[in-house]
This record gives sequence, structure tokens and C-alpha cells, in this order.
Amino acid sequence: MREVYVENTSMTKFGRFDLSLRQLTTQAGMECIADSKRKPDCLLIGSMNPEEFSSNSNISSLVADYLDIQGIPSLRIETASSSGAAIFSLGCNLIASGIYKNILLIAGEKMSGLETQKVTKILAKVIEENERESGASMPSLAAMVTMAYKLRYKMNKELLNELLRTIAIKNHYNGSMNPLAHFQKEISEDDYNNSKVISNPLKMYDCSPISDGAVGLMLSCEKTDIRVSGLGHATDTVSLKNRVSLSHFAATKLAAKKAYKSSSLSPKDIDFAEVHDAFTSFEAINTEDLGFFDQGKSYIHILNDETKLKGNLPINPSGGLKSRGHPVGATGLAQIVDCVKQMRNKVSDSRQVEKNNIALCHSIGGMGNNIFVNILEKVAYRNTTIPNYNQIDHAIIQKIPDSAQLINEGEELEGKLASYTTLYVTPEGFDSPLTLGIIDTLKHKRIFARALFEGEFEIGGSITVFKENETVYFRKTSYIDQIKFFVRRNIKGLLDLFE
Amino acid sequence: MREVYVENTSMTKFGRFDLSLRQLTTQAGMECIADSKRKPDCLLIGSMNPEEFSSNSNISSLVADYLDIQGIPSLRIETASSSGAAIFSLGCNLIASGIYKNILLIAGEKMSGLETQKVTKILAKVIEENERESGASMPSLAAMVTMAYKLRYKMNKELLNELLRTIAIKNHYNGSMNPLAHFQKEISEDDYNNSKVISNPLKMYDCSPISDGAVGLMLSCEKTDIRVSGLGHATDTVSLKNRVSLSHFAATKLAAKKAYKSSSLSPKDIDFAEVHDAFTSFEAINTEDLGFFDQGKSYIHILNDETKLKGNLPINPSGGLKSRGHPVGATGLAQIVDCVKQMRNKVSDSRQVEKNNIALCHSIGGMGNNIFVNILEKVAYRNTTIPNYNQIDHAIIQKIPDSAQLINEGEELEGKLASYTTLYVTPEGFDSPLTLGIIDTLKHKRIFARALFEGEFEIGGSITVFKENETVYFRKTSYIDQIKFFVRRNIKGLLDLFE
Repeated sequence: MREVYVENTSMTKFGRFDLSLRQLTTQAGMECIADSKRKPDCLLIGSMNPEEFSSNSNISSLVADYLDIQGIPSLRIETASSSGAAIFSLGCNLIASGIYKNILLIAGEKMSGLETQKVTKILAKVIEENERESGASMPSLAAMVTMAYKLRYKMNKELLNELLRTIAIKNHYNGSMNPLAHFQKEISEDDYNNSKVISNPLKMYDCSPISDGAVGLMLSCEKTDIRVSGLGHATDTVSLKNRVSLSHFAATKLAAKKAYKSSSLSPKDIDFAEVHDAFTSFEAINTEDLGFFDQGKSYIHILNDETKLKGNLPINPSGGLKSRGHPVGATGLAQIVDCVKQMRNKVSDSRQVEKNNIALCHSIGGMGNNIFVNILEKVAYRNTTIPNYNQIDHAIIQKIPDSAQLINEGEELEGKLASYTTLYVTPEGFDSPLTLGIIDTLKHKRIFARALFEGEFEIGGSITVFKENETVYFRKTSYIDQIKFFVRRNIKGLLDLFE
Repeated sequence: MREVYVENTSMTKFGRFDLSLRQLTTQAGMECIADSKRKPDCLLIGSMNPEEFSSNSNISSLVADYLDIQGIPSLRIETASSSGAAIFSLGCNLIASGIYKNILLIAGEKMSGLETQKVTKILAKVIEENERESGASMPSLAAMVTMAYKLRYKMNKELLNELLRTIAIKNHYNGSMNPLAHFQKEISEDDYNNSKVISNPLKMYDCSPISDGAVGLMLSCEKTDIRVSGLGHATDTVSLKNRVSLSHFAATKLAAKKAYKSSSLSPKDIDFAEVHDAFTSFEAINTEDLGFFDQGKSYIHILNDETKLKGNLPINPSGGLKSRGHPVGATGLAQIVDCVKQMRNKVSDSRQVEKNNIALCHSIGGMGNNIFVNILEKVAYRNTTIPNYNQIDHAIIQKIPDSAQLINEGEELEGKLASYTTLYVTPEGFDSPLTLGIIDTLKHKRIFARALFEGEFEIGGSITVFKENETVYFRKTSYIDQIKFFVRRNIKGLLDLFE
């Protein structure tokens, strides 16, 4: 295996512009080629949904054409919102293998120009069908992960709120100094507190924006100042309800394990990181899944300012998805480009991190199910052997068997509420507010359901699930339910005696 | 570099079914895993537009989930209608490199269930924007390529018609014996002659159908009976008008050159081939671009029955896209699976080709701009060194600079008609019939335009191009035009004298 190096990078401004995806990707590509000493012998395009956002299919040929490098192999890769990280990872593998010498990576997305409800609907296509048909959107699933995290570590509402607000304020502060960020304004505690609830407990300032932007990067087998140290990639079930843990991302843990193993590094060696903060709560969860902090303890470090720009372990010095913006297919590569800039001291002094030898980038596709962890390192820093990308064990992640067929029309099941949220910004075709829950039934299977009536629920509380007109609903278990369940259990016991 | 082998394959029936893309890909994947001795350590999904055809984004995670192999890396690759060939090529590179040992490839598309006009519109997103906005659809561009081919080799209408009909009848005959083909019925000369014109000279029986289907294949570094001998991949400009040759596909020639070089084989070594016959005329053009026959001479061999099942060089023994069907993302991998079946004598005796040591597969993405040529070989056949996938020269293909900005509102240019067609099945928003042309102007740039009035045109004839209300039109050059052009040329000459 050969070593892989980052040569040149480029990035358009992120935000909302009157530019097409073709224009954005061409701009990023032209800039990257113009400043590079290498001629690409392959082009990889990362984009999540150019078909629906931009009416462009076949974009890998289109970009090659507009960059005037038609002829060379070009592929488009899609892993939902981690597509930009996917082309980085794939590009490294293809250079390490000796197949190509210099690969041009271009990741981009054009999301503005469509109505927000339409964008929400397009993004929701990454969600498993049963959950999508119940009205689930990305913010509502993120909210349910957050609620499960809160429950697992017995956080009170105030502490969770303080944690999320701290992350939002930090990332907006970082972004305020990044001239290419979508948002370049700080936000105050009041701004955060007064922002509207999207899906309880996530407020508007907990969610990344709808953005446009494109990024370029030239990978090479020829030595530069930055080598790619470690690569990790793992998937998980698309459906939340099939996950063993609702409060963490198993695929992040697995991808991180691979990245650390291939680089012979540990979480303690990382100087700074860009992590996928599509929702602020994810930043807390990610820092634990990546091994930076103990499970459930990230709040101590985050509230202690350790993840700020001048802290021990700066997280998202670019502003993150929250403030740099989140053109879905571009994000994963934007993280890498931002890390390279920090490692080359090419950001303003105010935004420069102090230790910049080793950087980690973490990108999530879908609701935590196609995840990349990539590690960059200054060549001058370690005298080490080349990374062993091919020494990785690609394990399967355990799952709870699918429960879609578990409940029949008219049947009632008893269970406990594993997580829930009330969504206020609902997808097309669903009234607001919409309360959604995941229930562990006594059969130890998880069911995704809609609340029959809106209201506050207690996580861990006793819940009755039933199916009516093809829709699965849940309600708080009433006394009558309890009696019914008691009788049924005992009749079943009696019947069993006679069998 | 390691050798790469094909282990197991699977294929659903192709046609139009009441099955979702998730169900089709799961079926192909389950079948491939069940019969395989290998456990995949990577999953590659080929699909062109699952977002719009099937409302599924993030399909690489989804398929891993439904196959219960979540955890392992999974990527979706898209190169328009060659996506299935793209995952084969990429999978081979990743195994050759030592990154993965066993890669499961699944390619699929679900196209039925939407109205034909909607499908046409989705497919047309692969076309360059200026051409698409003029009303171009895939059949109309294919027709223009066919007309340019006819002109270049001075074929008369009758010969071209006979050539296309022979290919259509042959491929339907082959498909009639393929139990998984979309169409399993022979067609007669009358059927062909009586079928309606889609875009002159292409009739309905010259065009592949809208199909559903999925295919699976397990690639391995461990020896089997079939090795992957050669890989070739090349792109070309998306826009037809920018191509140096309108009548052939430069990207096929370049991809074939790479495939032959990496395998140390020549066209003469190929025993049979699956080539991309989305339109019958492409089969004739492809056999020339692949080096099987001299340029403009394929008709001699095709009309002489050499490409039939029992001929010297059977082409599309599966029935091809024409008769096996064309679920766009699945097609490229279906070709490989069909070749493997032939090489393993796993087809009915009536459909079995005689020589089956070396097979070539050729797949086109977009209108000839993202093309793969892959060669398979029986391990027992040659005592050879391993293929050199990395010894390939990834050259750029020359193009005619973009002419979109060449003509101004109100300006008139003189030129010659390079190709044209009259489209009878028009995309949404365009009246039928619609005549489209490519004109070589005196400035030696190509312009794509709509006819001002419908009618018959002479290829090579004198044409006037002009822009009105943002639309570029063409008309036969009139005597008045000729006088205008003459005067302008001479005034310009006079003006030049004084400069």
C-alpha cells in the first residue's frame, strides 16, 4: 500500500446563492486544479441528491466536462449526508492501491431555491419507510436520539438545555470568524433561548441550516506536508427502532475503531476535530462515541470550555455544520478542507487552533447509518510506518430484528416508552404538532408509533401500542389497559397449562 | 495488485412488477449471499435514480440493513445508466488493491409505476441543460447520433433500416430464450416495420423498454473459475454538440483501449460480448468502437449473421437491453452476470454460445459519456500474468469548445447541418413533432437548435441559425439569407482592410 497525501484544497463560500450546482462545483474544481501541481487521473464527485435539488443526473460526467478533463474516469458517490467524506475515503483507498496517482475530489450540493417543506421532504427520503410514513423527519429522529441520551445519563432538562446552548454558541462564535461560513454572526444566550422549538428538545439554533456550497481537494501519491493517517467507515441499520442503543451511534464507534487502528493512533492523540453537528446534541454524543470523553460525561468537558477554539480539544473550529453550513453532499469534504487549512496555518489568527498536528473528521450519512472517520496528520510530526488501511476488521453491527410486522390490526401490546418527541415543523401531509415515540414492548422488540393524543409523556413510562387503519399508535397505559393486560397474561397462563 | 475473481451471481426477473426497489435489491442480495461461500466485507450499490424512481435516498445503508450486514462499509455509485458496470469496475479495483477481500455488488432500478412521460423526464436529466431545454430526450439524441453515422458512411435509408431491424429481431430472438428477460417473444419483420417512429429513424423496436430488476455478484480475491482480465473506464463531454465525432463514441474507444491493454488482449480474442444496445443503432456503432469490425463496416458482419448466437462473435446473447430489459442502474451488472452464466454453461442449450472463454461487457452512462468496458476470462484458458489495472493511461478526450454563448439574440449565422431528427414522443412541455438539429457554423463551432418549421432536412445542407426570445432556431438557408451572408462577408473583408 502506498501513502496518501493531501495536496491542494478549495472551497466556495457556503450560504444561499443564485448559483447552480454546476456552477458551484465548477468553481471549486477550477480553483483546485489551477493551484495544483498535479493533473488528476480520476475524478470523484460527492453529492447527495443533485437529481431533485438541482435537476442534474449524471453529474460525474457533467463536472468532468465543465472542468475540461472529460476522458478520465469519473464516478459519483452517494452515502446521504456523508457523501463528501465517502469520496475522500474512497479516493485514499484508490491511491493507496496504486490504481490512480492523483484524484480530484469535488463535493457539492445546491439546496436553496426550493421551498423548505420540499427540502425537508427530499431529505426525509433517507429515513426508513415505516418511520417516514409515521411522519418522521430528520429533526424528529434527532430529537428522539437526544431524548434517549438524556434518559440514559439521567440528565435533567436544564443541564441538557445548557449543554446544547453552549455548543450552539461556541459553533456560531467559531463560524463568525470563518469568511466562508454560511453564518458569520455570534449568537447570544437569549437568541438561543428565544428560538422556536423544532422538535422537542431541539430548537432552531440546535439545527444546521439549508445551504449551498462546493469543495475541492487534490489527493496524491506524491509526498506533501499532510498525510492521510487513518480511515474508518461503517454502516448501521437505517431504522432507529432496530438499534440496540438509541442514545449513541454504533457506526461511529466502529468507524472510529477502524480509523484509530489503521493509523496506530488513539483518541488522546487527536489535536482537534470536525464532527458532524447537524444537530447540537450530536456534537456531545459524537465526542463520546469517538472516545474523546467518557460516555455521558462530555457535558463536563464541553461546559468547561475544553472544546472551544483555545481549549484542549477544539471541536468544530470551522463553525461546524451548525454555522459553516450544511450543503449535505459537500459537508464531509468541507470538514477535511477546514482541517487542512488549520494544519497549514491558513486561517485567521483568531480562529487558529494551537496544536494542529493531528486532526480527525467525522461525518454522518442518514440518521447515523453511514459514517466515516478520517484522520489527517502532518508528515513532519511522526516517524511512522505507512497506514494499514487494509488491516481493518469490517464487523457487522448487531441489531434488534425488524418489528414492522409485529403488531396486527386491532391488537394491543404493552410496553415502555424508550424515547419520544413532539415535532412542531411537520413534513407535508402531517398536522403540527406531531408526537412520535419508540416503544419497547414486552416481547423485547421496538416499535415506532404516533401518539393517539398529543401531550407530555414520561420516558420509561408504561405505554399501550395498537394498530388502527394501518397506522400504529401509542397511548399512556390506562387502568383499564392494565386490567386487560393482566387478565390476558393470566388466561394465557391457564391456557398454557392445558396444552 | 491481486487478481480478482467472480464467485457467485444472482438476478431477479426483469420486467414490470409490483415490487419496490428495496424488495428487488433485497431479493438479489439474499440470493447471492445464500449461494456464496464468502462473507462480504464491503457492499457496493449501483442505482441511477432511486430518489425519484423509488423515493429512496441513502440506499447503500438501506440495502445493507435489509441484508442484515449493517456495519460493513457500503457505498452507492452512480454514473447514470452505467452504474451497474461502475460498481463492478470499482469493486475490482478495491479487491486488487488489497483493501477488501470479498465485495458484494448489487445493482437495481425500479422504473415502472410512474407514467412514461415522468420516466422520460427523469431520464432526460442526464442530458446537458442547453440541449434538454431545447426539448432533447434520450431517443432524440440517439437518433441524431444514428443520422450522423448514416451520413458519415453514406448509408442509404433502406440499408440503415435493414441493419437496425436485423439487430432488433436478433436480440428479441435471444431474449425469447432467456427466462429472466423482460421480453420473451420473438418479433417479425412486419412487427418491426409496423412499429411507430419514436424519433426518426428510430422506431419503437429500436428502443429499450422501461423495466424493473436487480442483480447481485460476489467478487473475491480467492480463486474461482473466472477472473477479471481487463477494466476500462472513460468519460466524454455530456453535450453532444461538443464532440469531435458525432457518429461514434470516443469514450468507448478509450475505455476499450484501457481494457485491452490491462488484459493483454485484443478485439480478436473476444469470444462473445454484451454491448449497450439502449438503441439498436448503438449495437452497430459499439461493435466498431470496440474494434470488432472496421468503422462503417459492421453492417456487413451483422447482416451476415456473424453476431447471432451461433455466429463467430455473438453479440448480446442475453437479449441485450432491447429484450432482456433496461432497469437503468442494473443493466451494467446484468451484462456481467449474463456473461458469467454463459461462461459457466448455465443457460439453456439453445442460448449457449459455442466459444465462451473470454467475454466483453460494454456499458454506456448518459448519451455516451461515462463508459465502462470490462473483460472476463476463464482461469483455465490462459496461463498469463495478473492483469495490470494500474498500467492504464487516463487520457483526456478532445472536445469542441462550448458554443452555448456563441450566438446572440437577433444574430444570424450560416452553417451546415451535421445531424438532425424529428422527435414524435416529446418530453413534457413540448409539442409533437419536434425537429432538432446540430449545425456546424462557419466559425467551426457546433450549435444545438430547434427547427423553426418542421420538415425534411438534408444532412450537410446549408442552414441558417438564429436566436429569438432566448431560443436558438435553425432553418434552411434561403436565397435572401445567402445574399445577406455574402454581403456581410464582403463588408467584413472591406472593414478588415481599413483596420
